[in-house]
Amino acid sequence: MNKQVSIIGTGLIGGSLAKALRKSGFAGTIVGADQNESALIRAVELGVIDRYSNDLSEAVAGADIIVLSVPVRQTGAVLAELLPGLPTDSVITDVGSSKAHVVSAARQALGEHMDRFVPGHPIAGREKSGVAAAETELFRDHRVILTPLETTRQDAVDRVSQMWNSVGAQVSCLSVQQHDLVLAATSHLPHVLAYATVDTLAGTDYVEEIFEFAAGGFRDFSRIASSDPVMWRDVCLTNKSAILDVLDHFEARLGDIRKAIETDDSKVLTETFSKSKKIRDNFLR
Amino acid sequence: MNKQVSIIGTGLIGGSLAKALRKSGFAGTIVGADQNESALIRAVELGVIDRYSNDLSEAVAGADIIVLSVPVRQTGAVLAELLPGLPTDSVITDVGSSKAHVVSAARQALGEHMDRFVPGHPIAGREKSGVAAAETELFRDHRVILTPLETTRQDAVDRVSQMWNSVGAQVSCLSVQQHDLVLAATSHLPHVLAYATVDTLAGTDYVEEIFEFAAGGFRDFSRIASSDPVMWRDVCLTNKSAILDVLDHFEARLGDIRKAIETDDSKVLTETFSKSKKIRDNFLR
Repeated sequence: MNKQVSIIGTGLIGGSLAKALRKSGFAGTIVGADQNESALIRAVELGVIDRYSNDLSEAVAGADIIVLSVPVRQTGAVLAELLPGLPTDSVITDVGSSKAHVVSAARQALGEHMDRFVPGHPIAGREKSGVAAAETELFRDHRVILTPLETTRQDAVDRVSQMWNSVGAQVSCLSVQQHDLVLAATSHLPHVLAYATVDTLAGTDYVEEIFEFAAGGFRDFSRIASSDPVMWRDVCLTNKSAILDVLDHFEARLGDIRKAIETDDSKVLTETFSKSKKIRDNFLR
Repeated sequence: MNKQVSIIGTGLIGGSLAKALRKSGFAGTIVGADQNESALIRAVELGVIDRYSNDLSEAVAGADIIVLSVPVRQTGAVLAELLPGLPTDSVITDVGSSKAHVVSAARQALGEHMDRFVPGHPIAGREKSGVAAAETELFRDHRVILTPLETTRQDAVDRVSQMWNSVGAQVSCLSVQQHDLVLAATSHLPHVLAYATVDTLAGTDYVEEIFEFAAGGFRDFSRIASSDPVMWRDVCLTNKSAILDVLDHFEARLGDIRKAIETDDSKVLTETFSKSKKIRDNFLR
C-alpha cells in the first residue's frame, strides 16, 4: 500500500497523474516538485497535490513511488538531485518518450539503485501544457508502456503497473528499442511533420487567407503542433536515430507520391491512397 | 424562389447538401443523379432526395440550381452529358477542390452557358464517404468559397450564395488562383502528408505494435488519410502546380528540422517548434 507518491514535474502529465490518483481513491500524500513555483502553488490551490518542495531530496523523502515527469533531457540532473533523499524502499519511474536516453541517464545517475528504476511512458497527452490543463481521466483506457531491463526488480515493475492500473490505464511491456522505434513512427514523426507544416504555411503567400479558410481537417492534422516545444525538442534530440530512420522512410514515400503527381500517374496515386485509407480504417476498428 | 435543385453526385457532400436543404425548409424537389444506382435508391429510402434519374439531361430538367458534386476530373464529362437538358433559366455550381481545372473543363463543356456557372467549394468534409455518411449540419458555420470569373453573371452568384446561406454556411469570394494556392497549403498538402505517413508506418518494422500503441495524436493527425482516394487522386492531378509548389516549401522546412536533429541544434528546434505552436494557437482563437 503506497502512502506517498512524489511527482517531479507537475505539468500536464504529472498534474493529471496526481488528479487521477486522488480520484481513484488514493488516500496517501501526493508531493509535487517543479522548477516553476507558481505552478506548484497553483497545484496546491487546485487540490492537485498536498504539498510541494523546491528541494528534490526533500520532495522524495518518505515516497513509496517517485514519478519523473520532466522533459527527458532533464532526467539525469533531476535524479542526481533527488538521490540524497531517496528512501530505501522506494521505486522510481518516469513518463518520457525516448527510453534509451532515459535509461542511459538513469543508469549513470542512480548506479546501484538502477534496479528500482522502471522506465515508463503513458501514451496519452494533450496539445495543452501545464498543470491547468491536467485532467483526471487523461490515462483512462490509454496504454502505458513500461520498458523494464533484465536487471529491473519485478516487484518494482509490479508497483508501477499497479499505480497505472489504479488510474484506469492498461500496462504493456516492450523492449527499450521496440518502444523507441514504435514511438518514433507513431508519435515523433507526426509531431515533426505537424510542426513543419505549420511552419510552411506561415511562410507562404496568402497567410491570412490560409488560416482564415483552413478547415477541420487542418485543425486536427495540426493539433499536435500546439504541443510543448521544449518537450518535443528534447524528444527529437534524444530519440534521434530512430526519428531520422523513420524520416528516411517517410521522405522516400513522400517522394514516390510527389513523382506520381509530377508524372500524372493516376494508378500509383489511387493505389497509395487506397492502401493508406484501408490501413487507417482498420486501425480505427 | 427555387423549385428544384438537382444534385449530380449524391455522396458525402451532395447528400449532405440535400439533407441540409430539406432541414432548412426548402419546399421544392431535390433530384439526384449518381453513377452508383444503389446509392441513389438508398438516398431516396433515407429521404435525402425526392427522386433520381440515371440520365443526366433528365436529372437537370426543370432545375433552378444544378450542383455538381463529383470527383473534379469528371466535371467536363458530366457537364457535357447534362447539357442537352439544361433549362434556360438554371444556374450551375460545383463543390470541387481545384478551381482552375474545374473552370477550364466547364468553359470547354458549357461554351455560351459559361456565364451561369459559379465555381464553388464548401470547406467542409469528413473522412467518411458516401450518402450514408451525409450530415444535415455539415455546412453550418463552415465557409463556402466561390470563385466567380469576370464573365460570371451576378444573379447566378447571388442564387448560389443564397442556397449556401440557407444551410448555414458563410460565403466568401476568392480568385481562382488564390483559392487553389490556399487550398493546396491548408488541405491538399496535409492530405498528401497524412497518406504518406500511414504508408510509411505500414512499411516499417513492428507494424503490429505501431498500430496497437498509436495514440490520439496519431488518430487525429491521420484522420484525413481515411478520405476518399479517388477524390484525392483527382485533387492531386488537377491542382498539381500549386501542390508541388507548397511541397517544395514543406520539404525545405522539413529539411531544416532534419538538419537540426542531425546536428543537435537545440536552438533551431526550440525556435521552430515555438513559432509553429504560437501560430497554430493563434489560428485556433
